[in-house]
Amino acid sequence: MKLKIAVIGLGYVGLPLAISLGKYFETIGFDTNKERILNLNKGVDINNEFSKKQIKKSKTIFSNKIEDLKEINFFIITVPTPIYSNKKPNLSFVKKASLIVSKFLKPKSIVVFESTVYPGLTESYSLKYLKKKNELNCPGNDLEEKNFIKKKENFFYLGYSPERVNPGDNKRKLSNITKIISSNVKTSLNIINFVYKKVIKSKIYKVQNIRTAEAAKIIENTQRDLNIALFNEFSIIFNKLNLDSKQIFDAAETKWNFHRYFPGLVGGHCIGVDPYYLTYLSKKNNYKPQVILSGRSLNDNMHNYIFNEIKKIFIKKGISLNKSKILILGYTFKENCGDVRNSRTIELAKKFSRNFKETYLFDPVAVTSNLGIKKLKILKKIKGKYDLILIAVSHNQFRKYSKSFFKKHQKKNSVFADLNRLYMGKINSDFSL
Amino acid sequence: MKLKIAVIGLGYVGLPLAISLGKYFETIGFDTNKERILNLNKGVDINNEFSKKQIKKSKTIFSNKIEDLKEINFFIITVPTPIYSNKKPNLSFVKKASLIVSKFLKPKSIVVFESTVYPGLTESYSLKYLKKKNELNCPGNDLEEKNFIKKKENFFYLGYSPERVNPGDNKRKLSNITKIISSNVKTSLNIINFVYKKVIKSKIYKVQNIRTAEAAKIIENTQRDLNIALFNEFSIIFNKLNLDSKQIFDAAETKWNFHRYFPGLVGGHCIGVDPYYLTYLSKKNNYKPQVILSGRSLNDNMHNYIFNEIKKIFIKKGISLNKSKILILGYTFKENCGDVRNSRTIELAKKFSRNFKETYLFDPVAVTSNLGIKKLKILKKIKGKYDLILIAVSHNQFRKYSKSFFKKHQKKNSVFADLNRLYMGKINSDFSL
Repeated sequence: MKLKIAVIGLGYVGLPLAISLGKYFETIGFDTNKERILNLNKGVDINNEFSKKQIKKSKTIFSNKIEDLKEINFFIITVPTPIYSNKKPNLSFVKKASLIVSKFLKPKSIVVFESTVYPGLTESYSLKYLKKKNELNCPGNDLEEKNFIKKKENFFYLGYSPERVNPGDNKRKLSNITKIISSNVKTSLNIINFVYKKVIKSKIYKVQNIRTAEAAKIIENTQRDLNIALFNEFSIIFNKLNLDSKQIFDAAETKWNFHRYFPGLVGGHCIGVDPYYLTYLSKKNNYKPQVILSGRSLNDNMHNYIFNEIKKIFIKKGISLNKSKILILGYTFKENCGDVRNSRTIELAKKFSRNFKETYLFDPVAVTSNLGIKKLKILKKIKGKYDLILIAVSHNQFRKYSKSFFKKHQKKNSVFADLNRLYMGKINSDFSL
Repeated sequence: MKLKIAVIGLGYVGLPLAISLGKYFETIGFDTNKERILNLNKGVDINNEFSKKQIKKSKTIFSNKIEDLKEINFFIITVPTPIYSNKKPNLSFVKKASLIVSKFLKPKSIVVFESTVYPGLTESYSLKYLKKKNELNCPGNDLEEKNFIKKKENFFYLGYSPERVNPGDNKRKLSNITKIISSNVKTSLNIINFVYKKVIKSKIYKVQNIRTAEAAKIIENTQRDLNIALFNEFSIIFNKLNLDSKQIFDAAETKWNFHRYFPGLVGGHCIGVDPYYLTYLSKKNNYKPQVILSGRSLNDNMHNYIFNEIKKIFIKKGISLNKSKILILGYTFKENCGDVRNSRTIELAKKFSRNFKETYLFDPVAVTSNLGIKKLKILKKIKGKYDLILIAVSHNQFRKYSKSFFKKHQKKNSVFADLNRLYMGKINSDFSL
């Protein structure tokens, strides 16, 4: 059987995968977002992860027409799995993608999910929707597969391979990150292995079942989230004690088993979101995770802490809050990455805008200059003089600014807060984490 | 000035240091525990970290007579810093050691602490007691030192170098662990560097001040404690979901930035204790650490969780609790280490002894067979038949036991709980973390 692959969902995860697979297989990159497809067909990746040349060179066909999925027998679903404002999993994208794929499933087709979900979701929730628009079934393990074959029953296969994409990281790309793959049936695991082996130059790591693969992904991000929360807590404590947290972290790092993280705002669609998938499932099973949720709560409130500390400095310096103009540099969720989804810097900016006179934002990396929040003014160029300049995201592009550049834009009695110490050793900061 | 060194407190930290320094300096190993000194003078290290030959060969003089400290001009204090049952710092050993040293301080003597404390303790609490029995003063920084010299004032120096000893670890020994050193005065920092350089073949890492060194040590152990708590929480969740946590951890470990820890009981005099020093100080400064304390609370209650899970299995198997005989293998706080201080396995055993008929313990590595707890019976040899065999500590010495060995000691309908999967793949366990 000739493999015809479709990648459903062309975000940070789907696009590189679709482009890579296109080198070896007949591949369609599918997204329901018409604008995204129009852009890609012009060679434009709004996320700036691929150059025009790279996209133009790709043999992958980009489409938003579902009829283009007709011939596909290998689907990879890479849609987002965000949360609602009440922190519960928003599975609408998984549902929608599963229903689309459901229409085009044929006997022995394979569906692999890469979206981060809680263990068990793929084989219950997603599978339910994959079966909706066809008469096929799906074996749950190798023994079951044999029965399906015996009965000459028509069936498709299910797989799961967690994405480990690291936006903004130029060193760790799809091809050199170890890839976990799973399927409950050996036949399909071998085919999934065959497909991924073409594009993964690093290792492929097979696990026993789908739930193990789902769980593995979610705990990776949960550990990262919790450790950042710990560093945030250290930073809060050492700030209270008038100790320089960076010097302490540097010293601790000289121990062989100390793992360095950096305090900061935890936003985005992974680290700040995935733990809630696990805690949701755990609570449903009558265990309220105390450690994971304590970290989440601290990280989710970090912008309030930063706001309050800066407010204290305003009061100490005798600068009036409600007459003040604020400039915040960076509003993406992460440095050197254009993504603004679930950016805590925007939450911080909102907090400022409610308490200070005017709040301006500047970010040359962000994919959008339209946040849809009236009180936040987006600058195309840094101009004017401010009572507070807050470096919220450490984009490399900001490194070029000098002390004298900032001086031009600072009022005489003003506050400079270099949150992540981008200018350490060059410009004194009134507040850092 | 010829250096004459005394190491005060000859536990897991002090003894290796005293023995190492003895190779290069006139060194006294001092401990108020008469029995410890008698043993060492016979060549016996009850902790089994040193052989008779190694101790006999050492040039270090072991003594419990304070008059032997008369000539000393370089003191290293390595006494324990435990907590009281209310989790507050027990500084009695630091106080006692400081008062002893105080009597023998001479102008330009140096006192270095290695005991883990919260940032600021050495320069406030310990210094106060070091000054008690003499007329000397102590400069707080280099500028101050110059004034002291100008005024021809008599003074001693203060330093801090956190211990990073890892009991039971044969690879990481004093000489190949990077050593942080600190002092608020450059003169003494250079002398401290000179002394430690003789025995540390790895790097010496100088930090700016004593409080940074104190804080660095405490956050190392706090991170370790919290991450074990996270793995314990994962283990609890995956147990509820009927997932094999080890397979999940193994898979997650294939990601470059995932740090592997192991679920388990966190006892001993470091990991389970040090975080409370930091949280105590933090609370005193009006910040209650939510993340650190959530991890502490989970780890401190892990023995209750284990007890309850095993109880469930007893009920499921229809074995009566109050008629049952229990055998617990291992009661030290850590594998391959004889130390029983703050061992959570003993807490677990106590819990069993209150609910089951008879509880027996066996541990060939433990330094003591007298726990002073009536209901816990210590065996010198495994004998008899049990309703539960619980492998609580994974000593290498236990590896020799086979499935048939255990079978001899198990009742027909019984429970086998291999907490840390020592016999994985060889013997099926009814419960593991």
